[in-house]
Amino acid sequence: MTELIDGNVHAANVRARTKVRAEAFAASHGRKPRLDVVIVGNHPASRAYVSTKTKMAHETAIDGRLIELPETVGKDALLAEIARLNADPAVDGILVQLPLPDHLDGQMMIDAIDPAKDVDGFHPMNVGKLFTAAKIDPEQMLIPCTPLGSLMMLVDTLGKGALSGRNAVVVGRSNIVGKPMAQLLLANDCTVTIAHSRTRDLPAVCRQADILVAAVGRPEMVKGDWIKPGAVVIDVGINRVATADGKSRIVGDVATAEAMGIASYITPVPGGVGKMTVACLLHNTVVAAEARARG
Amino acid sequence: MTELIDGNVHAANVRARTKVRAEAFAASHGRKPRLDVVIVGNHPASRAYVSTKTKMAHETAIDGRLIELPETVGKDALLAEIARLNADPAVDGILVQLPLPDHLDGQMMIDAIDPAKDVDGFHPMNVGKLFTAAKIDPEQMLIPCTPLGSLMMLVDTLGKGALSGRNAVVVGRSNIVGKPMAQLLLANDCTVTIAHSRTRDLPAVCRQADILVAAVGRPEMVKGDWIKPGAVVIDVGINRVATADGKSRIVGDVATAEAMGIASYITPVPGGVGKMTVACLLHNTVVAAEARARG
Repeated sequence: MTELIDGNVHAANVRARTKVRAEAFAASHGRKPRLDVVIVGNHPASRAYVSTKTKMAHETAIDGRLIELPETVGKDALLAEIARLNADPAVDGILVQLPLPDHLDGQMMIDAIDPAKDVDGFHPMNVGKLFTAAKIDPEQMLIPCTPLGSLMMLVDTLGKGALSGRNAVVVGRSNIVGKPMAQLLLANDCTVTIAHSRTRDLPAVCRQADILVAAVGRPEMVKGDWIKPGAVVIDVGINRVATADGKSRIVGDVATAEAMGIASYITPVPGGVGKMTVACLLHNTVVAAEARARG
Repeated sequence: MTELIDGNVHAANVRARTKVRAEAFAASHGRKPRLDVVIVGNHPASRAYVSTKTKMAHETAIDGRLIELPETVGKDALLAEIARLNADPAVDGILVQLPLPDHLDGQMMIDAIDPAKDVDGFHPMNVGKLFTAAKIDPEQMLIPCTPLGSLMMLVDTLGKGALSGRNAVVVGRSNIVGKPMAQLLLANDCTVTIAHSRTRDLPAVCRQADILVAAVGRPEMVKGDWIKPGAVVIDVGINRVATADGKSRIVGDVATAEAMGIASYITPVPGGVGKMTVACLLHNTVVAAEARARG
């Protein structure tokens, strides 16, 4: 029997705890924690993501604001907007929605964000802290949201300490998911393998995983027979695929139907990791607000 | 037949190239690149390391200076010394020799070094750049010296591009070697596994490695039958062990005698990775000097 790890339930728990903290913050400081999300242009999926983020912020007692800039905004104007948000004492978290249009350098914009307000956890200073910390503490650090949410679901599902000594395989080596996910699993004492497009015999590598994290962005790439019986599968992919009726549906990076009966646990898509990503963004916003208030 | 990878030869090549650049820097800027090494207390091995570093610096046309502080130096006095070196425009590289006495926090001192002068590559900002860079370029970044030297030997021995798709296993997860080594191998398209003290069946994990990096600090822990026939072995360990005659000798983390005839290549200890560590420190000092001169 394969059990689904319900992202909606886990995310609701994170948001409930975060809301309590956000309300306590507001009571102490006379203002809500505030998350400002910058979006450039009209990419439909990005617009959907950011509206979810600000809507969820409001429901979590966080002041979520959306800053919409035209597709044609220049480098200097975007940097000036980031500088303005850095300087605004009422702004706790700044998120620049990626990807940006081709004429803008995403890393340059990330580097420009005050690390104390970098609720995505992508600034090199926050990445460096994540990779060097003696102890990884999501209350003290700004950790990228998708890996943090994935780790929280693993720990909540398996129990604290249960990751120690397990073989974890992360497929994908992005800065946003693969590499920080590997670091979080390593910090939890997994033996960690990072696989990717150049890996030879990827199915065999995946079959060694007690914990398999798929973060490649390729629809249903991980097949049922790539999964070790009893493995825990975290499916980070969110891929839109066309269906026979001319519409589309969302699938993950794992062929979930094939995984059922083989994996012990799996996160569904939709309704899995994606829900935790937004919840962890709100968590990070409150962590940033509290840290800034402590000074 | 197992071939030895001669660290003396590789290091001499790096130093020769670095010396040419250091001399060109001096000709352009009217001063040599300068490395200041801070040592606290009288730890004999540390004193031997730092005197090698400054001696090698001088032979490479780098102005290497040693700053000796007493074992009892306080936190604030050490921070003040680092601040003085940060502010001195003639200082290009600052190295605080680790480990520090127990009353001093090594990470706090690393965090205090100007990232532009952090020739050890340990500052979170430099670590963050290493783990997020789209392209890892030792001419543009300050990369920890031991992993950088190990990678250079691998690339020089096997040829550029030969690492792609190979299974690399790094035993040890320190900030100084294991984690940055894993990142360098990943950036060279290896499938990378990080193993450590909590790994189950470490011999079996090691036997999967086409490239095996041992960085644990345990004398001759990696046995001959842990090595896949034909694997390339990088032995980062430098361990002093007592001998029957009451003296001592230096051994690595790999049982080298057992590995002979199994591995295709292995770095000896002494005369392997250790030599490259110092050479890469000098390389980093010139990279830092050039970058600072560019402004």
